[in-house]
Amino acid sequence: MRQTRMPFDMSTMNFASDNWAGASDRVAAALVGAAGGHAPAYGNDPLSEGVTEALSRIFERRVAVFFVGTGTAANALSLAHVARPGGVVFCHRHAHIANDEAGAPEFLSGGSRLHSIEGTGARVTADGLAEAIALYPPHAVFHGQPAAVSISQLTEAGTAYSAAEIAALADVAHEAGLPLHMDGARFANALVGLGARPADITWRAGVDMLSFGGTKNGCFAAEAVIFFDPEKARGFEFQRKRAGHLFSKSRFVSAQFSAYLEDDHWLDLARHANATARRLADGIEQSPGAHLALQPDGNEVFAILPRAVDARLKAAGAVYYEWHAGNLAGEAVAPDELLVRLVTSFRTTDVEVDRFVGLLTQ
Amino acid sequence: MRQTRMPFDMSTMNFASDNWAGASDRVAAALVGAAGGHAPAYGNDPLSEGVTEALSRIFERRVAVFFVGTGTAANALSLAHVARPGGVVFCHRHAHIANDEAGAPEFLSGGSRLHSIEGTGARVTADGLAEAIALYPPHAVFHGQPAAVSISQLTEAGTAYSAAEIAALADVAHEAGLPLHMDGARFANALVGLGARPADITWRAGVDMLSFGGTKNGCFAAEAVIFFDPEKARGFEFQRKRAGHLFSKSRFVSAQFSAYLEDDHWLDLARHANATARRLADGIEQSPGAHLALQPDGNEVFAILPRAVDARLKAAGAVYYEWHAGNLAGEAVAPDELLVRLVTSFRTTDVEVDRFVGLLTQ
Amino acid sequence: MRQTRMPFDMSTMNFASDNWAGASDRVAAALVGAAGGHAPAYGNDPLSEGVTEALSRIFERRVAVFFVGTGTAANALSLAHVARPGGVVFCHRHAHIANDEAGAPEFLSGGSRLHSIEGTGARVTADGLAEAIALYPPHAVFHGQPAAVSISQLTEAGTAYSAAEIAALADVAHEAGLPLHMDGARFANALVGLGARPADITWRAGVDMLSFGGTKNGCFAAEAVIFFDPEKARGFEFQRKRAGHLFSKSRFVSAQFSAYLEDDHWLDLARHANATARRLADGIEQSPGAHLALQPDGNEVFAILPRAVDARLKAAGAVYYEWHAGNLAGEAVAPDELLVRLVTSFRTTDVEVDRFVGLLTQ
Amino acid sequence: MRQTRMPFDMSTMNFASDNWAGASDRVAAALVGAAGGHAPAYGNDPLSEGVTEALSRIFERRVAVFFVGTGTAANALSLAHVARPGGVVFCHRHAHIANDEAGAPEFLSGGSRLHSIEGTGARVTADGLAEAIALYPPHAVFHGQPAAVSISQLTEAGTAYSAAEIAALADVAHEAGLPLHMDGARFANALVGLGARPADITWRAGVDMLSFGGTKNGCFAAEAVIFFDPEKARGFEFQRKRAGHLFSKSRFVSAQFSAYLEDDHWLDLARHANATARRLADGIEQSPGAHLALQPDGNEVFAILPRAVDARLKAAGAVYYEWHAGNLAGEAVAPDELLVRLVTSFRTTDVEVDRFVGLLTQ
Repeated sequence: MRQTRMPFDMSTMNFASDNWAGASDRVAAALVGAAGGHAPAYGNDPLSEGVTEALSRIFERRVAVFFVGTGTAANALSLAHVARPGGVVFCHRHAHIANDEAGAPEFLSGGSRLHSIEGTGARVTADGLAEAIALYPPHAVFHGQPAAVSISQLTEAGTAYSAAEIAALADVAHEAGLPLHMDGARFANALVGLGARPADITWRAGVDMLSFGGTKNGCFAAEAVIFFDPEKARGFEFQRKRAGHLFSKSRFVSAQFSAYLEDDHWLDLARHANATARRLADGIEQSPGAHLALQPDGNEVFAILPRAVDARLKAAGAVYYEWHAGNLAGEAVAPDELLVRLVTSFRTTDVEVDRFVGLLTQ
Repeated sequence: MRQTRMPFDMSTMNFASDNWAGASDRVAAALVGAAGGHAPAYGNDPLSEGVTEALSRIFERRVAVFFVGTGTAANALSLAHVARPGGVVFCHRHAHIANDEAGAPEFLSGGSRLHSIEGTGARVTADGLAEAIALYPPHAVFHGQPAAVSISQLTEAGTAYSAAEIAALADVAHEAGLPLHMDGARFANALVGLGARPADITWRAGVDMLSFGGTKNGCFAAEAVIFFDPEKARGFEFQRKRAGHLFSKSRFVSAQFSAYLEDDHWLDLARHANATARRLADGIEQSPGAHLALQPDGNEVFAILPRAVDARLKAAGAVYYEWHAGNLAGEAVAPDELLVRLVTSFRTTDVEVDRFVGLLTQ
Repeated sequence: MRQTRMPFDMSTMNFASDNWAGASDRVAAALVGAAGGHAPAYGNDPLSEGVTEALSRIFERRVAVFFVGTGTAANALSLAHVARPGGVVFCHRHAHIANDEAGAPEFLSGGSRLHSIEGTGARVTADGLAEAIALYPPHAVFHGQPAAVSISQLTEAGTAYSAAEIAALADVAHEAGLPLHMDGARFANALVGLGARPADITWRAGVDMLSFGGTKNGCFAAEAVIFFDPEKARGFEFQRKRAGHLFSKSRFVSAQFSAYLEDDHWLDLARHANATARRLADGIEQSPGAHLALQPDGNEVFAILPRAVDARLKAAGAVYYEWHAGNLAGEAVAPDELLVRLVTSFRTTDVEVDRFVGLLTQ
Repeated sequence: MRQTRMPFDMSTMNFASDNWAGASDRVAAALVGAAGGHAPAYGNDPLSEGVTEALSRIFERRVAVFFVGTGTAANALSLAHVARPGGVVFCHRHAHIANDEAGAPEFLSGGSRLHSIEGTGARVTADGLAEAIALYPPHAVFHGQPAAVSISQLTEAGTAYSAAEIAALADVAHEAGLPLHMDGARFANALVGLGARPADITWRAGVDMLSFGGTKNGCFAAEAVIFFDPEKARGFEFQRKRAGHLFSKSRFVSAQFSAYLEDDHWLDLARHANATARRLADGIEQSPGAHLALQPDGNEVFAILPRAVDARLKAAGAVYYEWHAGNLAGEAVAPDELLVRLVTSFRTTDVEVDRFVGLLTQ
């Protein structure tokens, strides 16, 4: 999704993005704790292996885990791993991979193309996916060769796919011989929002590869590509290395993930972010002028504000991005209104939410 | 250079690599300090701008700085930035880009090829470079189009180029219309080893782009591509983003670099590493059986050990890599000897050096 | 545009595509004439130089000409030549480059993406283009970097851009710093259809690069990339060679082009194709049940046929492709109708057109 | 191999290259014969299918055949088809793919690298290959991942591999899990030179993919990639299309190949070229001053000429390229001598050979 430029403001009521928050105390402390001594480079250290074990427990099966530095790298390298000549990746028209990664999926996969699919709430439907795939009959060399399906959980509209919706998409994808990738930059928020088990909204529903994001939920820079069938990960380490995404001091990622996953810390962080988003959404719903464009499933609230309210909030120091109206296929935006995105994080306080809501109703 | 596989060992006398050390206390503390609050994502924060200012002071001119996560990314993206169709990059046969980056320079630059040049001590000479370039006459479309020259400082043999040597190479490169890139994964060690000013061994000598490494010298993961002419950096931000190397919480790199550069901390760290390397080299030179393959200019010591001594050191827990004999064109290696690489770091202690040296002479 | 599979039929009334026709007698004879003797390879022969001269005369300025083997190569290499990291190429949603080249533009340009623009008759409008470009503000690294605009002449709907329309598009493109590429696979048909001078619908209107197609209009395999500013062609020869598109016996292309361009042979061929298309279109317009979806500007007729008529034509041996209804934003297609594409060529006879038209009215 | 620039000269005694000759009468006539009528585009025509059948008969098994326009495309697309991330292709240091294709193999395979192997007569030995592969242990992600082995038949030194030599190389390649590709730009000359059956020096000896060249031996532009196991060709059609190498009027290639393969025409053409090469070689051997650098196995003669003789030949209008001394590891070249390459073709006459030889002895 496209964002208008905004002046940077360090004040509170900062709902610009969850990637504006720093790191949780436990994550930061873990990094310091990992600073000492020597450890083998390139992920061959015990800490890194421990993260794979933790994720295998969380996902209830042995998974293959590859750390990378950014969500864009996780997405693009996943798709590059399953790329085919003339490859076509099916995704929603508002998917992050299609709009916000500067062509990384295309570049790192050697020239794949993204086939955009419409769908309300930034969700692809099984029917929409089947229709899109049908445009590429197996022998029609001209149009290109289907290669993968990618969905986002949370979506770019802050909504979540249910396990059943994912399973329906996976069926269509697998029927066509395509792996299903999930961009989980906000996977924890979706998980907590759905109240689901990690396995149920991933491999049990047919997800083959997951970009498992920690950065937006309390880490500095901790992303991983997870393969639910480790056999299918063969060669991925070369993919990662030749894209420059193998960290030598890999422990700086594993330390973050260790603290992140320990004692359900990641879920606590996401629960906090989601709860403040809910509080914010409730306040908006109950306000006289503002209203929700969509019901949030996680930590992103899309709201429609009267322009006067927007001006008042900005003047008071609130920070958030205007969003392109119409992108969400939600409520209509009147000429004297604005569609805005408000993102909460592990760091968001009830105090700043309440202050924001108070300003709505002045 | 090629390394044989080794069992991992966490004991002291760890000379495996400077990327086995964690992070310096100041760097680790800075990360914790940067964990709080909100900051604009993607490098638009004051901390990131401060690093550019610090580097501009250090290099005595306004530079353009781009953080990336790994040295491989820094090198490959630099070269991708100046790539040409059928592009040829000239480098030493033992260059890191040619041997240890899994084809990242080729991949990220869209299929460039590396033309390897011989040279003692892993150094390219101006004559060697001129000869190599001459193999690609301007209109010989078949052979490919020269695109760049890349040298390493320190080299893969632990040697440093003098300012005069660099200037001679830059003259040859520029004469042919080629930018000069420097892989500075161990730039601080070279700088301290030469006792030079940063500007004198970079842009004043004709270097156009520098991979400025912090990781091997006390950071967790802090690398930067520096353009000495910011005009020539145009478009690099797209290059970086589409390779997945733009960190959202960019402050996690800028915090490291801030602490790293402040109060000459980076130079202190490198001085320490170099001093322990010198102490180690002296010990080896004075030992009865072992000897140096090359005089070290930084923190890498290439030594030739009798196999019996090697066995004794290993048994005592020393960790280091065997190196391919002959790679360095230094002293000859006898059948009952081994060429090994010993790397010191900011973390190396005199105690472990002395223990290692003591074992040589038993 | 997407085509349904059809049984191959070698009968007359063949309107499948102009690339089903062989070569004109003059072109075939020229090839035989060029078979003897020795000539320098790789385009350094007098015959190849003669083609550049002929094209320079035709376009009323000195042009740079590069032969390639296919229209896809011409388009993709043109766009690769002006590619940028994260590059975005603007084109119509039905453009050949977007639908029928299996991702060649993306692949050969190192991962560019195509931004599709809607527009009736497969034509991009200046407003539509300006709106699309505005989605990529210069510093928004996430969305990608605009790199080029590509239009087709004839379009995929068989329509032509007027000189004024092209100039308006070029203004928008150049304002944004983007070169304008024209896919001229059916350039001769457009030229003749418009009754224009070659210069007026290319460089004088702002076109920077032209894929100049000969294959569909009477050659076996003769395509060229033309740069109207030869300075801007610098390095293209490496682009072509590294994609495997430099023919050693280049004369086999130059011989075709020589005969093709001599004595206005190419215009005669196109005039013939267009005239038979017009005759076909007139017949359809005057028929009781069939009607035109769009008025043709060249040699492609999009018609809407009652399904009963379609069956009758097929039974009589007519060959043509069904087209996706709605693609053309022309006349509506009823459930008992089909949208079809009928392509004429230099080889089409009035006899077969009349036979086809006769079958419409039975 | 590298060539010095030479003035173009259209005189007889033209030994510049077999790609300076035009096309054989039968090939040219076949093209004219195929110019009429309509045929399905993109290789779905009976003529194209006939070529696959002819090649299947010739190779004594069902093969998959893909036409492309150039030898560079055939080689690069073959290697791209088996590319892996960080992929390494093993070939001789003088291989055409390594020196004369402007990086096409690297580019089209998404950044593979070529590992050059030394060997006399431009031949790789099984031991040399095994040694090179051993430099890439399976888990050493840094060095890259072996992907393929490529040999040339004829080699760049005009020598041929025997069936036994090929089988030994194939054993080493397959042991390492690598497919064996053969660059057969001069396959017919090698075949005739060895007096072998096509199957015996290809798939029976372990060759997996063959670049089957017709261009240098009497065609205008006819090259094919042959897969000896059609199952392994899956997806290649997308590879070819996205590189722009699928011809629409595919019959222009199939017509050439039809005539080329019919009645052993291709073998007759090669026999003629080889015989004139042998005549030339014999003349050189018996001359007082000139001598052979290597015994030719096909239609390329590498000779060492006194400079005075060279001047005399040039003055008389002979055309040939000087070759880099030392490339062939054959006879030494004295300071007053030149190493030159003399290539014969289907078009070379005994008269011009004898005139050339006569000039040697004046």
